[in-house]
Amino acid sequence: MDFSLKDDVIALDKRIRAFLKEEVEPLEAPLFEHGFEALAPQLAVARQRCKDAGLWAPALGKELGGMGLPLMDFAHVSETLGRTPLGHYVFNVQAPDIGNMECLHQHGTPAHQETYLKPLAAGETRSCFSMTEPMHAGSNPTIMSTVARRDGDDYVIDGRKWFTTGADGAAFAIVMAVTDQDAPRHRRATMIIVPTDTPGFVNARNIPVMGEPSGGWASHSEIVYEACRVPVSNRLGNEGDGFVIAQQRLGPGRIHHCMRWIGICERSFELMCERAATRMLAPGKPLASKQLVQAWIAESRAEIDAARLMVLRAAWRIDTVGAKAARVDISVIKFFVAGVLERVLDRAIQTHGAFGMVDELPLAYWYRHERGSRIYDGPDEVHKGVVARQVLKGYGGPESGGSR
Amino acid sequence: MDFSLKDDVIALDKRIRAFLKEEVEPLEAPLFEHGFEALAPQLAVARQRCKDAGLWAPALGKELGGMGLPLMDFAHVSETLGRTPLGHYVFNVQAPDIGNMECLHQHGTPAHQETYLKPLAAGETRSCFSMTEPMHAGSNPTIMSTVARRDGDDYVIDGRKWFTTGADGAAFAIVMAVTDQDAPRHRRATMIIVPTDTPGFVNARNIPVMGEPSGGWASHSEIVYEACRVPVSNRLGNEGDGFVIAQQRLGPGRIHHCMRWIGICERSFELMCERAATRMLAPGKPLASKQLVQAWIAESRAEIDAARLMVLRAAWRIDTVGAKAARVDISVIKFFVAGVLERVLDRAIQTHGAFGMVDELPLAYWYRHERGSRIYDGPDEVHKGVVARQVLKGYGGPESGGSR
Amino acid sequence: MDFSLKDDVIALDKRIRAFLKEEVEPLEAPLFEHGFEALAPQLAVARQRCKDAGLWAPALGKELGGMGLPLMDFAHVSETLGRTPLGHYVFNVQAPDIGNMECLHQHGTPAHQETYLKPLAAGETRSCFSMTEPMHAGSNPTIMSTVARRDGDDYVIDGRKWFTTGADGAAFAIVMAVTDQDAPRHRRATMIIVPTDTPGFVNARNIPVMGEPSGGWASHSEIVYEACRVPVSNRLGNEGDGFVIAQQRLGPGRIHHCMRWIGICERSFELMCERAATRMLAPGKPLASKQLVQAWIAESRAEIDAARLMVLRAAWRIDTVGAKAARVDISVIKFFVAGVLERVLDRAIQTHGAFGMVDELPLAYWYRHERGSRIYDGPDEVHKGVVARQVLKGYGGPESGGSR
Amino acid sequence: MDFSLKDDVIALDKRIRAFLKEEVEPLEAPLFEHGFEALAPQLAVARQRCKDAGLWAPALGKELGGMGLPLMDFAHVSETLGRTPLGHYVFNVQAPDIGNMECLHQHGTPAHQETYLKPLAAGETRSCFSMTEPMHAGSNPTIMSTVARRDGDDYVIDGRKWFTTGADGAAFAIVMAVTDQDAPRHRRATMIIVPTDTPGFVNARNIPVMGEPSGGWASHSEIVYEACRVPVSNRLGNEGDGFVIAQQRLGPGRIHHCMRWIGICERSFELMCERAATRMLAPGKPLASKQLVQAWIAESRAEIDAARLMVLRAAWRIDTVGAKAARVDISVIKFFVAGVLERVLDRAIQTHGAFGMVDELPLAYWYRHERGSRIYDGPDEVHKGVVARQVLKGYGGPESGGSR
Repeated sequence: MDFSLKDDVIALDKRIRAFLKEEVEPLEAPLFEHGFEALAPQLAVARQRCKDAGLWAPALGKELGGMGLPLMDFAHVSETLGRTPLGHYVFNVQAPDIGNMECLHQHGTPAHQETYLKPLAAGETRSCFSMTEPMHAGSNPTIMSTVARRDGDDYVIDGRKWFTTGADGAAFAIVMAVTDQDAPRHRRATMIIVPTDTPGFVNARNIPVMGEPSGGWASHSEIVYEACRVPVSNRLGNEGDGFVIAQQRLGPGRIHHCMRWIGICERSFELMCERAATRMLAPGKPLASKQLVQAWIAESRAEIDAARLMVLRAAWRIDTVGAKAARVDISVIKFFVAGVLERVLDRAIQTHGAFGMVDELPLAYWYRHERGSRIYDGPDEVHKGVVARQVLKGYGGPESGGSR
Repeated sequence: MDFSLKDDVIALDKRIRAFLKEEVEPLEAPLFEHGFEALAPQLAVARQRCKDAGLWAPALGKELGGMGLPLMDFAHVSETLGRTPLGHYVFNVQAPDIGNMECLHQHGTPAHQETYLKPLAAGETRSCFSMTEPMHAGSNPTIMSTVARRDGDDYVIDGRKWFTTGADGAAFAIVMAVTDQDAPRHRRATMIIVPTDTPGFVNARNIPVMGEPSGGWASHSEIVYEACRVPVSNRLGNEGDGFVIAQQRLGPGRIHHCMRWIGICERSFELMCERAATRMLAPGKPLASKQLVQAWIAESRAEIDAARLMVLRAAWRIDTVGAKAARVDISVIKFFVAGVLERVLDRAIQTHGAFGMVDELPLAYWYRHERGSRIYDGPDEVHKGVVARQVLKGYGGPESGGSR
Repeated sequence: MDFSLKDDVIALDKRIRAFLKEEVEPLEAPLFEHGFEALAPQLAVARQRCKDAGLWAPALGKELGGMGLPLMDFAHVSETLGRTPLGHYVFNVQAPDIGNMECLHQHGTPAHQETYLKPLAAGETRSCFSMTEPMHAGSNPTIMSTVARRDGDDYVIDGRKWFTTGADGAAFAIVMAVTDQDAPRHRRATMIIVPTDTPGFVNARNIPVMGEPSGGWASHSEIVYEACRVPVSNRLGNEGDGFVIAQQRLGPGRIHHCMRWIGICERSFELMCERAATRMLAPGKPLASKQLVQAWIAESRAEIDAARLMVLRAAWRIDTVGAKAARVDISVIKFFVAGVLERVLDRAIQTHGAFGMVDELPLAYWYRHERGSRIYDGPDEVHKGVVARQVLKGYGGPESGGSR
Repeated sequence: MDFSLKDDVIALDKRIRAFLKEEVEPLEAPLFEHGFEALAPQLAVARQRCKDAGLWAPALGKELGGMGLPLMDFAHVSETLGRTPLGHYVFNVQAPDIGNMECLHQHGTPAHQETYLKPLAAGETRSCFSMTEPMHAGSNPTIMSTVARRDGDDYVIDGRKWFTTGADGAAFAIVMAVTDQDAPRHRRATMIIVPTDTPGFVNARNIPVMGEPSGGWASHSEIVYEACRVPVSNRLGNEGDGFVIAQQRLGPGRIHHCMRWIGICERSFELMCERAATRMLAPGKPLASKQLVQAWIAESRAEIDAARLMVLRAAWRIDTVGAKAARVDISVIKFFVAGVLERVLDRAIQTHGAFGMVDELPLAYWYRHERGSRIYDGPDEVHKGVVARQVLKGYGGPESGGSR
């Protein structure tokens, strides 16, 4: 075992931190005051500077204009970008676009890549991923009602999706729809590219979430597919591949997300320490002299470090044994890191008192936006079940048919 | 001991619930969508209907147009009103106005009562309470920088306050200012009525909190007092009474708040149960069949009931032995009930999944607005210290000078 | 609502505290050093003095030599007795005997009362209750393998029980056995009195628990019934009444237990405060000056008070609406109070440091013996399920067939 | 970063597991039934077989008859040995002897090594480490009352120590005593070897802990030093080195301990999974089908893995930057791993129900004995303070004199 970081990762991290400090953190205040959409011009400038600095799209291959970092290296970058709510967006590695890019890269035809992937990788368009449905638990992607019926050389899609992040303003959606209701559970659905200007693709509403009207990239839409017709050539992979492709995007996506959360934790931790060290309760007696605050700091330090090691080990396992064999690791980090995020953020806010709820620091922003971390991509409870069932296969209970 | 409820309390509660269902809950959706200020006309109508129904200002004496309920009875009413974010406002028992009314009633001169209390009690004006300062921990009201200098028959006030709730649009503030820096710690400050149109009373800004720009009653302002001159006759009580009056308003105020939180808990609990019972994971298998959801329901049921008993006992003790002797009880319920509120709300959101964060139910609203429950009126940590120090007086440590 | 205590309860409590201090607490040290059985002579003396003081068997009727306290009053007494591990035993209100006495009193024939109840009430014998079986979850008393076959005027009992507390040295057992496997689930079992000298009643072993060999009253036995023959007249109630009688003993028994736990909490709390107040970290700086210790004290104060109110309200509901209607309350206090007990005890030990684990204080004794509080009489998890299912009946899910 | 294990570590681990299964686990039942001392003959046999198998003293250098494993490798071995309460003892790497061996190896003179270290390394003697005092918090080794007065070529030691583990039957103690009260805080104390047959070395009593009378290696003694005279040549290092040497033994000792706890966690985890998989609630429905049990399994899996990574990283840091620079890591793992141990053990017991408290499995044994893990070597609360103060040095509060 070797816990050391590579020199080039350290050097890159330093450059990215400097860039964030210079170009991105100054945009936080206007973000908190005016929202994401109002920030569009400044974000365009920041993105251009990111390209100019040679830091664009670190997770993407060089042929797509990215830096071509392997997963273990990008993990560290994702943490650093997570320190500001705009980091991933400015670097063009934001969900759901990065996941869509990976899908298109691995499963798209040359035509898909030319039409959809290239402009996305260049940051000229945005996209969305349309899977969760209002009437079904998002945690189980094998049960859905949206149907894509084959009609000659077209698919005709009907159904309703929601929490489709970033649909507002997206150039296209990758939609998951049932193409064969009678197939085995994991072969029923197919992924299909649907340009958002296709007739029958209806953004019914941007769902207001946690007090924000939602718009642009920061939107969560309810989408209705009404006899929405696209050519069969818009299909990703073969019919019935939907679930398999969804699983594939999950592993690296989980690493990105979890490291982003750790970035949030680190920034919150620093704010907490700074507040504790500088807020005076009485002359010469900072808040940091209180034992409860010290306990929060120590526990946060421990938990953040543990979370990072767990995510990096999961990334290492994806790299060495593959996402399928690393399934338990990928589920474990979901609930483990989300739990750490919740606690660290909460302690940071409590340390700030009323100031922790004011829209000047990113704490209140994250408090609202990251409540979802324990819910999306399957609630923690579901992932715990996944882990337990995998673990229990090694034990001789009747459920597992084991013989031990 | 007797845990039964009085018949008239039960009857009144039934009437209030019916009124809320009819007149107030329909205003929640527009509140979540457009904010408090946009709702002004509808709220005015609802308040008039509340008066018409004879339910106006239940905590106020009949001579002020209220129902004259004793604390123990109003406690139950406050819980019921807490079931909707607009309940207390419509019934004119909302903080900080209700606290100001009690102050003016107990300590105001006849002129104060005529000029300030009457229109407030009638719901024709609003008011604010200006105590917390940016540079001092809000938990210790004996340390503050705002000064009221005596100049002939006037006080001239200089200083800076923040988190002055409802200042935007208020007719007057009750401000806490140091009148004698050399007096013993608890005799330094005085409460003074300052009409908000007094020159030198400057609302520097409405502080945006948890993603809301803040405005009207739902505002939290930073107020600057710049040589703000008011007649000495605007003083409440004697010079140096500020801390004592602040303490007095605390006891009943705590009961109101904590019961309001319990109302939030009960509504959240019902939403959680309803969701659990009706959300299907598979045909015939509701979310309520999951053991973790059952555990959340059972733990919430236990904790809410325990919290209510604790608050009612504190109210009973205020009634029977007085607020001073009930000091420990009043501090205990602060952190105990705030903790229950946090957990119940969190479980209710988690049970709803992504829908728990959508601005259709009050859950996401409370999640944002009630994060402050563990902070304002003194953070939980401070109250725990208060309780421990009181308890430890009974033990023979050197700290207490005891002899046991 | 009225939270005041009756004067006679207060006076009685004072007498009992004095008696415990004088006669029972001095026996704790020898108990921790030599175990329960070695203490028999001293305990006999203490019991006699208890009788002499007119404090004997406070939960039993006067016709049985007891004090005849109603449940609400005995609840307070049970808390006070719980302050020492020997309290209930000395006063002859210890489990399982007190439960057996109540059973015999309500369901025993005059002959049963003469033969079994009288000497038990007088403290001349001990008894046990033989229900839990090794192969079945103790939480579900409708599933058991022990069978009582009718043979003429006898029952012939075969089966295996364990965790039969106090079997070692008991005069008789009340055993729960299936008399009609084909009856509806709650009518299958019957309670039968089995003198322990009956052939075929075999105490297979005293199960060592938590490092103690177990013996006498403090034993937990595995009992084998091998063609154990007793007359039909030894039956309590009618055939099939077993479950109903078991449920009846549960309600008051739960109150006794929970109040005993609260007594443990109060004593532990006092030890914690005393240690905190007197243990010096440095001259003039007691352990109580540490904020974490203060938080433990405050949280414990809050939780113990909440637990007590919950149990008293459950007792009040048993008294006013009956044990069946109070079913949720009776399940709620099981897990709620057991949780408080666990936390308070843990904090008290942590406050004492290594001394908290030494067998001089009762803390280490309770730590070992009361780990079972979250397990016996049904693990907490089962009770949470009971509560949730009852609560959910009020909500219109398909499970409940409701219509709301 | 590289999370892979070396092949030879994997191979060694396999051999050790086989040895434990064969030679050590069969001794658990008699340990739980009869205690440590009764087991002496069997343990002697097991130790001889350990030597024969070439597995003796893996943490010791080959020149001492050990295997000479570096810290990172022994860490894994310590985890595996921790799976049984007798593992470390049989392999002669048990506390406090292993720490004493390391001290003697690094700081002992050739004569010390001949007289004390050799027989200890060979398992022919036992030893103890006499530092904690009844009147001072064990967490601060700079405050103590035991004094070693220089008298010619002798030290004369007076004072009282307690919780001196393994003193009963030890050949010698290493005692920490103040040699210069006026020196700077960290230079006051000195370590001195005291053979236990020295006049004035009085084992006042074996302190009974958690229901066990305590004896032999499993004893915790109160030692009185009464004018106890030893030659100055018994000193370890120079006068005043006591604290420094104590700190040195701490780092590797912490790794050993924490990995041992992880071994306990893993065995408990396996017992929990096995119970969950095989205990039937109803035909075909194992306990493992309950969602709460699944959550316990998943959370335990996550926490144990996180704990192990944290300890291994701390070991790696001790190896690469030294124990002093790794100070925060060494404090972090103390409370982090102790917390995991507590929760995993508790869940394993709860999963077993009443059977979890029976002295057949090691769970109840560990529950009692490992309660100390959050207390000894400094309570968790102290370590949290250490971590926080180190972290806060990087922040510009007045406390740290920083300038940021």
